[in-house]
Order: sequence, then structure tokens, then C-alpha cells
Amino acid sequence: MSMTIDRTKILLDTIKRLLRRGASAHLNKIVNKTHAADLAVVFRFLTLREQEAIFDLMDDVGHEAMLFSELEEEILIKLIEDMPPDKIVGILEEMPKDDVADLLGKLSDERSQALLDLMAKEESEEVEGLLLYGEETAGGIMLPDFIALEQNTTAREAIEALQRDYADIEMPFYLYVVDDHGHLVGVISLRQLVVVPPHTQLKNIMTTEVVSVRTETDQEEVARMVARYNILAVPVVNENNVPVGIVTVDDVVDIIREEATEDILKMAGAGEDLIESQSIWRSTRIRLPWLLASWLGGIVAFLIIGYFETSLNKLVYLAAFIPIIMGMGGNIGTQSSTIVVRGLATGRINIKQVWEVVFKELAVGFFLGFFYGFLLGVVAHFRYDRWLLGVTVGLAVMSSMTIAALVGSLVPMVFARVNIDPAVATGPFVTTSIDILSVFFYFQIATVLLAL
Amino acid sequence: MSMTIDRTKILLDTIKRLLRRGASAHLNKIVNKTHAADLAVVFRFLTLREQEAIFDLMDDVGHEAMLFSELEEEILIKLIEDMPPDKIVGILEEMPKDDVADLLGKLSDERSQALLDLMAKEESEEVEGLLLYGEETAGGIMLPDFIALEQNTTAREAIEALQRDYADIEMPFYLYVVDDHGHLVGVISLRQLVVVPPHTQLKNIMTTEVVSVRTETDQEEVARMVARYNILAVPVVNENNVPVGIVTVDDVVDIIREEATEDILKMAGAGEDLIESQSIWRSTRIRLPWLLASWLGGIVAFLIIGYFETSLNKLVYLAAFIPIIMGMGGNIGTQSSTIVVRGLATGRINIKQVWEVVFKELAVGFFLGFFYGFLLGVVAHFRYDRWLLGVTVGLAVMSSMTIAALVGSLVPMVFARVNIDPAVATGPFVTTSIDILSVFFYFQIATVLLAL
Repeated sequence: MSMTIDRTKILLDTIKRLLRRGASAHLNKIVNKTHAADLAVVFRFLTLREQEAIFDLMDDVGHEAMLFSELEEEILIKLIEDMPPDKIVGILEEMPKDDVADLLGKLSDERSQALLDLMAKEESEEVEGLLLYGEETAGGIMLPDFIALEQNTTAREAIEALQRDYADIEMPFYLYVVDDHGHLVGVISLRQLVVVPPHTQLKNIMTTEVVSVRTETDQEEVARMVARYNILAVPVVNENNVPVGIVTVDDVVDIIREEATEDILKMAGAGEDLIESQSIWRSTRIRLPWLLASWLGGIVAFLIIGYFETSLNKLVYLAAFIPIIMGMGGNIGTQSSTIVVRGLATGRINIKQVWEVVFKELAVGFFLGFFYGFLLGVVAHFRYDRWLLGVTVGLAVMSSMTIAALVGSLVPMVFARVNIDPAVATGPFVTTSIDILSVFFYFQIATVLLAL
Repeated sequence: MSMTIDRTKILLDTIKRLLRRGASAHLNKIVNKTHAADLAVVFRFLTLREQEAIFDLMDDVGHEAMLFSELEEEILIKLIEDMPPDKIVGILEEMPKDDVADLLGKLSDERSQALLDLMAKEESEEVEGLLLYGEETAGGIMLPDFIALEQNTTAREAIEALQRDYADIEMPFYLYVVDDHGHLVGVISLRQLVVVPPHTQLKNIMTTEVVSVRTETDQEEVARMVARYNILAVPVVNENNVPVGIVTVDDVVDIIREEATEDILKMAGAGEDLIESQSIWRSTRIRLPWLLASWLGGIVAFLIIGYFETSLNKLVYLAAFIPIIMGMGGNIGTQSSTIVVRGLATGRINIKQVWEVVFKELAVGFFLGFFYGFLLGVVAHFRYDRWLLGVTVGLAVMSSMTIAALVGSLVPMVFARVNIDPAVATGPFVTTSIDILSVFFYFQIATVLLAL
């Protein structure tokens, strides 16, 4: 049976109906044959009480562990609040260790320590190791299980070692080769291993161009490398080039989606996480501060127009052009900054290309500004029969769009250069500066040209 | 040696320098030990002549095939324009078939048929099969190589079949199980196969809850499923539930990045593809039409203000509030539509939830509008010592922000409902409608309340 996204809605309705009816036997059947990823989606729409009722019906600890891995953090934390610690630990021990570390990192230090104390020593040490690294770094998302063998090992010995020591590796795609200091020197795919003569030493068949990342590498960079090289796992090395873990492609898929969502929301000034499931109040509070920049910018524009009040009094219909001049600047500025932010995120634009990129955007802004400014000038001339007014609003659109393209491309490049997330810069900051600059230049040009 | 993204820049500089010097021997060495994915990035910054020089230095057809797979379409099409057909076919035969189909789909029918005629019969049939499906569907991106066995097969027979018939499968993660009509009925991971007693029949160990997609399923939906279920490959079935291919996780990684980029650019009205590497003229032409909506909207706002010219003449400083009222509406509208568009793209918002989502956004818009409207009202009152003006601009901000949240959330939901890409709706369309509505309600409120 194939489960598509739309069927989740049907599943949710069924579960809610059975919960209302208290039809445990039927519910029990459904819960235990539903994929944990689907249950996790259903959980988003249930109350804590309902979630607990469903969870109690789950028969298999492996299924529970998958659900824990799939649940959103906030939901999971509330769900385990009143759960007995040994029950929790039983489930944690079935989960991938990077997910366990993620969860423990979110709990209070006491709570997390209490759980670690209950875990088997080997497990808890590995998890504690992961907790040392930043949550969004390669170290924080890696799995500590991987296969590493010394370069003089033969293919036959390697296969024996795999069967003996590495039977429970989660993702056995690659075998990493180390020298006698433990440094990473090569990689072999498991398929290669079985097609060479058994006495061949690993060093003679390994690929020496290993793509690897450091424990402190940002997860976004890790994702970019896995995507670029189309690999199924990337080894994570410490400062001595000794492998300490791997990041697998299924985690990378999640990172890419998360990072893209984060970038999109930040650019729109709508927080970092998708808040569609949060309460109205919470949502209001998250979005409130982002709008402050825009409000303050509006006040500055208000003061600028106030400063030109004499000009405006003499020619009141100047006001009618404010929306189009601001709007054209705002839109092209958003285009430019979006292209730059996304280009930087996907590695298609390099931060060293500042002037090349900015100059290009400037030129595009100028040409588009010339085109739309000319159009508006013609309209203004015919409406008010005053060619100097046409020139004024035409120039205003041109300067607004040129400046907007400049600001929209330069600001994220500069932010990236000084290591501030360029996506944050884009939204309110760029839009607001463009609004202010557009209005100022418009009235300045009008005052001079129309001799107001 | 680990190759990070920043090193690409160094590689590019080195290659360019060696090309200028004509240092073929040195260049030859570098080219042949550089990963095809890195060469593909370098190619973006080279002229066709330089690209050809580099390509001629490549020694290994497997390496050439990887480069073909990694190169951007436009670059690849130009590169092969003057290449002898049998040389091209030699390379195509080393490439994954989905990549070959992608390329041939881009060439003229004659050209593509000429290449197919030169290919081995079995290969060309498989590629032609893929060409039947839409490029952005599961059928268009699937690999036709996968493992499917009948459900009565024993584990031992399955292992023998794998070694005998499936030795050259690219991604051997899962074994799919079919009934005697060839219908997909289960899945087994290769690891499961080796730990059960040899005489066990597949139907007794297979998982019957197979996640699968149809050939016509959109690639975005395919990516969403692979991400949700953390699987390494998803089987593609035809209308009779017979497996015809698989989509692997490494292709999904690329799809997710592409789709996110596409959504981000569309929302900003900046086309569909990252155009940072295009010429200034081309870039201008792509962005020109997107700005037309915004220009026309500006003209409508201009007409509206013209219509209220009498009011404006009596109270000219009303103009000073236009930027803040438009800006606040525009920003919250962008927040709302971004949350909805991204929520729809990631499957976190369901199109059936229209009223729930829209009502929530409306409420958030109302509260934020009340807050920032009140703030502005206070400022206006103190600046002009006229409390009714304060009430006017306060109400204007409130109505602008409430309407913006409504439009920003409703429009993408409605578009998604009628199967139009909601990302396209968001950018110019939403922003422009909000600008017009904000200005209209502002002057309407002012005219009534201030009795102008």
C-alpha cells in the first residue's frame, strides 16, 4: 500500500474519530501499522492527551523510537515530560545517536544528565561526545558509527572485519581507510571491495581524493558538499584528520529542506521556523519585532516627506507618485537580494565576487529603471501636461530602481563577508532602506527640477 | 585531500592561469585528478573555447560521463554542438540513463534521434522509455535499474539472483517483491535478506507497507516522500502497480535544492532559475515582465490618489503617511504569503485547511495592525495635535495590515486549490494588490473621518 501525503488527512480524521469513540481495539491496529513519519504528522494536530493515548497503544519499542526521531522537538519534549525515565531511556537506546543528542541538548541539564546516567555506558559516552559539538555543525549531526580500516589491510581481511565487527552499522556504504596514525587517507565503496582479488591491500584500490568535513563545519556546508558530489555519506574528521563520524544523505535531505525554509522565512522577516502550527498569540509575538524595522523606516519616510512639505504644498499631486516609486524600488530590490542570498546559499555565488555581482545588479537596475521610468514619465506628462514633471518622476523611478538593485545586492554580500547570515539582512532591512532612499531622492529631484 | 567549496575558486584561478600559459602537461594532471563536480563548477566561468581545451585533456570516459552529468544543461548543449556523434554516444553510454534522457529531451528531435540510433539497442530503448514521461515527474527522473523478485522466491534464491543478474545495479539498497502478476507487494532491505534462514520465502519477511510513487507523480511530491520517510530510494510504479524504476536519494537532494531555489525566486518575482551567471541583457529581459505587475499596480494607486485629490489638497500632510501604511501592509503580506507558500511546499499546510489558515493569519494581522496602528496614531496625534488624524492613520494601518494578511494567505491557498503554483502568486501579485488596497482604504477612511 502506498501512502501519499493527502492520505495523511484521511488518517488524521480516522484517528480522531476513533479517539472520540474510544475504539481502542481498532485504533491499536491502525497505530501499529502506520509509519512513524505519518504518526508524527498526525501528532501535530492532536492535543497532548490524545498524543499520550496514541503513544500508549504502540506495541513496539523500535516503532516508538522512530516516532521519537520523527516528532517535532516541541511536541516530543511535552510528550516525555511525565514519562518514567527508564521508559524514555529504553526508547532512546533504539534511536540513532544524533537524534538522541539533539533531544538531550534541548532538555534541562539535570534532566539530560539523569537520562544519560540511566543509559548503557558506551551509548551515553557516544551521545555525550556528540553533545560537545554545536547543534548545527557536522559534529552535532554526525553518526559515530562508521567503518575505518588500516590501509595495509587486504580485501579479504576487510570483508571478514565487516562481518565480524561492523554488522550493526546503520549505513554501510563506504569503508574509510586510515594510515597508521589513524589519519583519513582514502575511501572504498563496499562494491569495489568484493570485485578485487582477496589479497589486494586497501591502499592499492582506495580513492585518495576523499571528500571530508571537519567537526565544526556548518551543517549547511556539509549539505552543500553531499549535494555537489552526489555521495551517500561524508566522513567527519577532527583537527588531526582522524575520522570521528559520518553524516548520511538522509540527514542531508532534512537539512536542505530546513535551511531552505529558514532562508525563505528570514528573507520575509517571518522568523526562522514555520510557525503555522503555533497559536495566534505566539505567532503574533514572533512576527511583531520583525515589523518594527519597517515601522521605524516608515516613520523616517514620514519625516522626510514632512521636511519637503513646502514642495508638496506647491504641487500636491507629487504625492500620487509615491506608491509607484516606492513599489518599483522595493520589488527590484527584493529580486536582487533574493538572487544574491540564494546564490550564496547554493554556492553559485562566491563572496569574493562582490564587485562583479554588485556591478551586474547595478547595471540591470539601471536599465530596468530607465525602461519603467521612461514609461512613467510619459504617463505623467500626458496626465498633467508638464514635461518637467515627466522628467522628474522618470528620474525618480530610475534612481529608486538603481539604488534598490545596489542596496539589494551589496547588503547581503557585505553581511556574508563579515559572517552575518545574509538571509536576515534581506527582508526588513533592505526593504526599509530602499523605501527611505526612494522617497528622499524623489522629493530632492522634484524640488530641484521643478524649482519648488 | 578534502575539497571545500572555497577551494573551487583557487582551482578556477589555477586552471585559468595554466590555460593562458598553455601549460598542457601540468593542466592535464590537474584536470584528470579533479572531481567532475568541481570541474562542472569551473566550467561555468570559462569560455566555450577554454571548456573545449579542458575537455580534450580528459583521459577517462567515465570521468567525462560524470562531467556530462554534472554540467549545467546550457553549457553541456553548447559543448557537444560540434562533437562527433560517436564520441558523444560513447560518453552517454557511461552515464545514468535519467541524465541521458534529460539531455536528449533538450536537443532537437533529429539530433536526439541520431544519437539514439547510434546507441546499443537495449540502452536506447530504456532511454526512449524515460523520454515518454514529463521531465519533472517520477517517470522522468527515475532509474530503470532496480531489483524485483517474485514473492515465493526464497532468501537463498534471491541472493543467488542478486549475484547473477543484478551485479551492475547502481544503487542496490532495496529488493522489491512482486506477486505473480508483477504487482508491487513488498520491500526487503538487502541487510534483512542475509540474516534470515536461507529457505525463508520473501513474502514472509517483506514489509508490505511499501512507500511508492506513480510514474506521473510530480518530482516535488517524490522528494517530499523520500524526505518524510527517510528512505534511500522510492519505487516508481505504473498505473497497474507494476514497478518500472526507482528514484534515488541523491537525485532527491538535487530536486529539493532546485525546487527551493525555484520557489524563492518565484516569490521574489525573479524568474525560475538562478540567473546570476547570465549576461546583463539576458538578466534584464528575464526580470522585466515581472516588474510590469508592480508598475501597473503603481499606476492604479496613482489614479486612486488622484481621485482623492480634493481631500489631499485640504490636508497635504496626509501624503507623509503613505509610505508607512503601504510598507506595513506590504511586509506583513509577505510574511503571511511566505508562511503559506512554504507550508504548502513542505506539506506542513494542507490545501484543505483554507479557512483555518486564513482565519489565523487574519487574526494575527489584526492584532499586529492594532499594535502598530496604535503606535502610529500616537505619533501622528503628537506631531499634528489632532486626535482624529491619529485615529485615521491608526485605522489605516490596522486595515492595511489586516487586509494584507488576508490577501497574503488567501491568494496562495486559492491558487494551490486550482492547481496554479502558489509561489508565483506570492510575489508581484500579492504585493501589488496590497499596495492598491492600502492606499484606497487610507484615503477613504481619511475622507470620511476628517470630513474632507
